[in-house]
This record gives sequence, C-alpha cells and structure tokens, in this order.
Amino acid sequence: MSHDCIFCKIIRGEIPSVKIYEDDDVLAFLDIGPVVKGHTLVIPKSHYNPLMETPPEVLCRLITAARRIARAQIKGLNADGINVSQANGQAAGQVVPHIHFHVIPRFTQDGFHGNWIPRKYESPDQMNSFADRIRQALE
Amino acid sequence: MSHDCIFCKIIRGEIPSVKIYEDDDVLAFLDIGPVVKGHTLVIPKSHYNPLMETPPEVLCRLITAARRIARAQIKGLNADGINVSQANGQAAGQVVPHIHFHVIPRFTQDGFHGNWIPRKYESPDQMNSFADRIRQALE
Repeated sequence: MSHDCIFCKIIRGEIPSVKIYEDDDVLAFLDIGPVVKGHTLVIPKSHYNPLMETPPEVLCRLITAARRIARAQIKGLNADGINVSQANGQAAGQVVPHIHFHVIPRFTQDGFHGNWIPRKYESPDQMNSFADRIRQALE
Repeated sequence: MSHDCIFCKIIRGEIPSVKIYEDDDVLAFLDIGPVVKGHTLVIPKSHYNPLMETPPEVLCRLITAARRIARAQIKGLNADGINVSQANGQAAGQVVPHIHFHVIPRFTQDGFHGNWIPRKYESPDQMNSFADRIRQALE
C-alpha cells in the first residue's frame, strides 16, 4: 500500500468507486473518465508500478481478470470488440503510478481512435447501469 | 496453426521476421509498421484469437514475455516509458486475427498520441540495429 496513491485509496475505500469485480488480489472498477462508456480498470490490491517491476504472477492475475471483464463487456454491453491497454511512465501517458490495465469495450463507430479523450457518464445512474450490465455478465 | 494466418506463417518461417525473442510457446518480433521504432509484437506459437478465447495460462506466458521485452526496450533503447496494448475485433482496430500484444517503447516527444499511424524503418540495417539493441538487453 502506498499512502498517497489514489488507487490504494480506492482499494482502502477512502475514495469511492463503482466496482465491477473484486477478489483477494485484484480490484476492477469503472474509470471515471471513460474513453468509451464501460471502460474498466483492473489493478492489483498490492501497490506495484510499473509493469516492468511487477512480479509475473501478479501480471498473470491481472490479465486473467482483464479477460473475465472483456468477456463480460462483450456479453453484457453487446460490445463489438475490446481494447486492453497499459501504460508505463509519463512518456507513455500514464497518470496514476499504480499498475493498471484498461479494458475498453469497443463499438463500430464509437469515435475512439486511440487518442485518449476522457468522456463523462451523463449521470451516476447511467454509470451504475453500465456497471450492472458488466457485473451481471461476469462468469 | 491456421493455414492462412500471417502470424502462423511467420512462426513457420514462411514469411521472414526480425525476431527479438523465442521459446517453445512464444515468439516476439519487430512490427514492420512501428508506431514508434522498436515496437515489438508478442504472440503465442499456437493460434488463438481473441483474448477472450485464449486460455489464461497462454495469456500469462504472453504478458510475462511482454514484461521481458519492455525491460529490454527500457535498457537497450533508453526508452522513457512503455505502452502495452492488445486489440480484439475490427471495431477495436485489430488487423491480424491471431492474438498479439504490442510492446511499444516511448520517448518524451516521440509524436505518438495513440492514433495508430504505422511508420517505417529507414532501412533494413536500421531495423536490425533496433532489434540488436533490444535483444542484447534481454535478461
């Protein structure tokens, strides 16, 4: 745990999040600035950063959780595709220095072309609705 | 193995590639249309697609290999950061339907803003030089 890390604060419940999935090692929650609605972050509950310094067994848990989220986004949101992406370092566009995988549902003509423009949910209800649809499709 | 898959042809040696790393399960080679020079693809030698249908143990091998490549890009190319990304489906920008992780070295002011513009090496020698620098830094 890192005292000042925003993701560690989310894990500790000091900052609220809309959770999608949680186990002993991994937390998945909605990005509050989604590039496409349903955009989910998958993080380890222990503080690691960057990928190059994260133990391989932790990476395995993260990518396995990302796979579950991706399957649930396809099924629950009727997504046409999925992007999984992960950034290390400011030069790579990383903002929060706690390793995280982005799992992004993609739709034909969704307007996302890789340039990272965070969007907003229209309301907390809409955000919760996306979370519900993903959670209910988890297998 | 898929008969018509371009990555399976690379694995079988029917199409040449500039290899970075290879073991029984995984092949890493330079993308011929790098978004940043040094851009490497990590693929399983068995044909799987997409991530949602790839067994978790295969994903673990791929992300562990991606970590090794990322470390070598930092050390061998003096990269400032790394992006790891993976696309599933045409809607997500996937071109070759054989699961692959992109491992992209990033440099401050490298001009890559996420929009996928493949660039070219200036010569085969330059491409081989990038490969050498990454391979020699592999641990």
